Amino acid sequence: MTFTSDDQRHMNRALELAALGRYSTKPNPCVGCVIVDEGRVIAEGWHKKAGEPHAEVYALQSAAAAAKGATAYVTLEPCSHHGRTPPCADGLINAGVSRVVIAMQDPNPIVSGQGVAKLQAAGIEVAVGLFEEQAIALNQAFYHRMTTGQPYIFSKVAMSLDGKTAMASGESQWITGAAARKDVHQLRAESDIVLTGVGTILADDPQLTARDGLEHIAVEQPHRVILDSQLKTPVNARIFKSNVKVTILTCSNNQDAMTALQQAGCTVQVIAADAQGQVDLYAVHEWLRSQDINSVMVEAGALLNGALLQAGIIDELIIYMAPSALGSDARGAFSMPQVSTLSDRVQLHYVGMHELDSDIKLTYRVKREG
Amino acid sequence: MTFTSDDQRHMNRALELAALGRYSTKPNPCVGCVIVDEGRVIAEGWHKKAGEPHAEVYALQSAAAAAKGATAYVTLEPCSHHGRTPPCADGLINAGVSRVVIAMQDPNPIVSGQGVAKLQAAGIEVAVGLFEEQAIALNQAFYHRMTTGQPYIFSKVAMSLDGKTAMASGESQWITGAAARKDVHQLRAESDIVLTGVGTILADDPQLTARDGLEHIAVEQPHRVILDSQLKTPVNARIFKSNVKVTILTCSNNQDAMTALQQAGCTVQVIAADAQGQVDLYAVHEWLRSQDINSVMVEAGALLNGALLQAGIIDELIIYMAPSALGSDARGAFSMPQVSTLSDRVQLHYVGMHELDSDIKLTYRVKREG
Repeated sequence: MTFTSDDQRHMNRALELAALGRYSTKPNPCVGCVIVDEGRVIAEGWHKKAGEPHAEVYALQSAAAAAKGATAYVTLEPCSHHGRTPPCADGLINAGVSRVVIAMQDPNPIVSGQGVAKLQAAGIEVAVGLFEEQAIALNQAFYHRMTTGQPYIFSKVAMSLDGKTAMASGESQWITGAAARKDVHQLRAESDIVLTGVGTILADDPQLTARDGLEHIAVEQPHRVILDSQLKTPVNARIFKSNVKVTILTCSNNQDAMTALQQAGCTVQVIAADAQGQVDLYAVHEWLRSQDINSVMVEAGALLNGALLQAGIIDELIIYMAPSALGSDARGAFSMPQVSTLSDRVQLHYVGMHELDSDIKLTYRVKREG
Repeated sequence: MTFTSDDQRHMNRALELAALGRYSTKPNPCVGCVIVDEGRVIAEGWHKKAGEPHAEVYALQSAAAAAKGATAYVTLEPCSHHGRTPPCADGLINAGVSRVVIAMQDPNPIVSGQGVAKLQAAGIEVAVGLFEEQAIALNQAFYHRMTTGQPYIFSKVAMSLDGKTAMASGESQWITGAAARKDVHQLRAESDIVLTGVGTILADDPQLTARDGLEHIAVEQPHRVILDSQLKTPVNARIFKSNVKVTILTCSNNQDAMTALQQAGCTVQVIAADAQGQVDLYAVHEWLRSQDINSVMVEAGALLNGALLQAGIIDELIIYMAPSALGSDARGAFSMPQVSTLSDRVQLHYVGMHELDSDIKLTYRVKREG
């Protein structure tokens, strides 16, 4: 399929529009739409929030009668089924557009290609694949869920060059700089769930909301989830202070603690215990999968991070590496007592690097066996 | 000073020629020279080995009478003093060149500018500073020594993403891949001294010579230096097998051990002990400075690396980071028991990164106080 430079310019704009929704559409994908008639952009739209109109709807409303005979650029294949909103393919057909350019097909194998087929059956010229790679990258976690049936689970770690997250005393504040911390808030804003352990709640009392650098941007805050086998989360923890959903996954049956935490404003969910009487990580994984979400960001200490990594539950590591060395006595990032020989090590795949002031951000994908 | 695109092309070639000597000129700088007459390259030369002719000498010999009226491109200011070879400034003057283009001045503050002055006094047009940055980068350690009076000391560490160099058992082979190991051999080939500790000799029995990927290149092997407080280096260690200089720095007076090691082919040098009865690292630093060399590559375990880093003796860290996580029980890269609060941490400055197959190479400069 060949595309003109005008096609490229308009799809590029549609991708820009799509990206405006990246902190608010969860668990929906970001989608942008541009409608062009005789070389002139006559309408634009982007998806803002789950349950609200799709990108095409905004653009078609704005274009009104002018959409007749026009070309629509959409970053994701228009939907062909009735969800919370009517199918966008029908909207495009009814509006009388003559051509639709699509960046990527719907990655959901059950509906993929159906939107295209519906448009074509209505006599509309359809071209697919322009800037497909960028469109997939923009909705990486959504793509992952749709193609694997599992949420994308990544762990964020801020550490020194020698892999240390805190001094032996626990002292850990500000290992990385302001730009790295701002980036962490963006990751939270993009994530459906931020997962942590009760150890982190007790040690750092974090809020785990997306704030820094996002003051003037619409953010759908992530659902915070705490693994807390024995229900030790204090009812006055700061994580309860903001008006955002918190769920505690536990294997305790302590009804008093449960009631107190529910009154503090969170949901308590009992899941299976493992042989050590801790919440079973595979049950946690199953619960995450049941939430119909795209992405889980793990912000945890060495024990939970190491256990999740060993259990093969982490898909990606995002490392903020500070320009410092703390020495072997400081606390490591991943406690993995079961790794005792090199052949047991967790193997990774280097993805990329960005400089963030004096820190660097490294991304690694966890290699799967077989 | 403005330079033409022809000037740039010729100086670029002179830098290429200079780089040919980077494994063999030690402790001299790498220098390249191109002689051009009426736009035509008539001769080239590069410095091959300390004690042998300088780049200009080779080029002038090759140009012979044709050098008269020509332009010489030299990557380093021609010398004006009698060393092991006669001054190159005199050579250029005697050959009758009419113009000399120089990338960088001699960084030695005692002679800097004298070569230029001598050429100018002879009526030759001189232009300095073309590709100065590249010329300095090519002779970074030499530049450091000339401007600070100290050798450039860097430590090479191969480790996992989480800062581990070996399993708790000591198992450590092949954490990084073939490209990273080849790069390590190049670093050795560029270094005057490779410094290690007796712990590494006993654990890994390394040769510490530059071999991999350098089979067809002239390499002046680095002088290997072992810190061995109690003279525990085995006389049959592999480091003695190659016909390259080895020095042991010790604070032991064990005459028998000393004689045995000398018979094995190495020099034993007694230096001061510290309060713990180990070789004093400041005495080691002083000894390194006394060697009139540019660069020292440290290849050591966590104890020596950490101690050198804490003592402020390391200028740069070169980290080969493997795509793996070994977990908190594995061995760290830097043992620094005196670092117990964040304010004591060793602060670094990120310099740059290269990908080497599936590994990455990170360079950090150690920040100095004050």
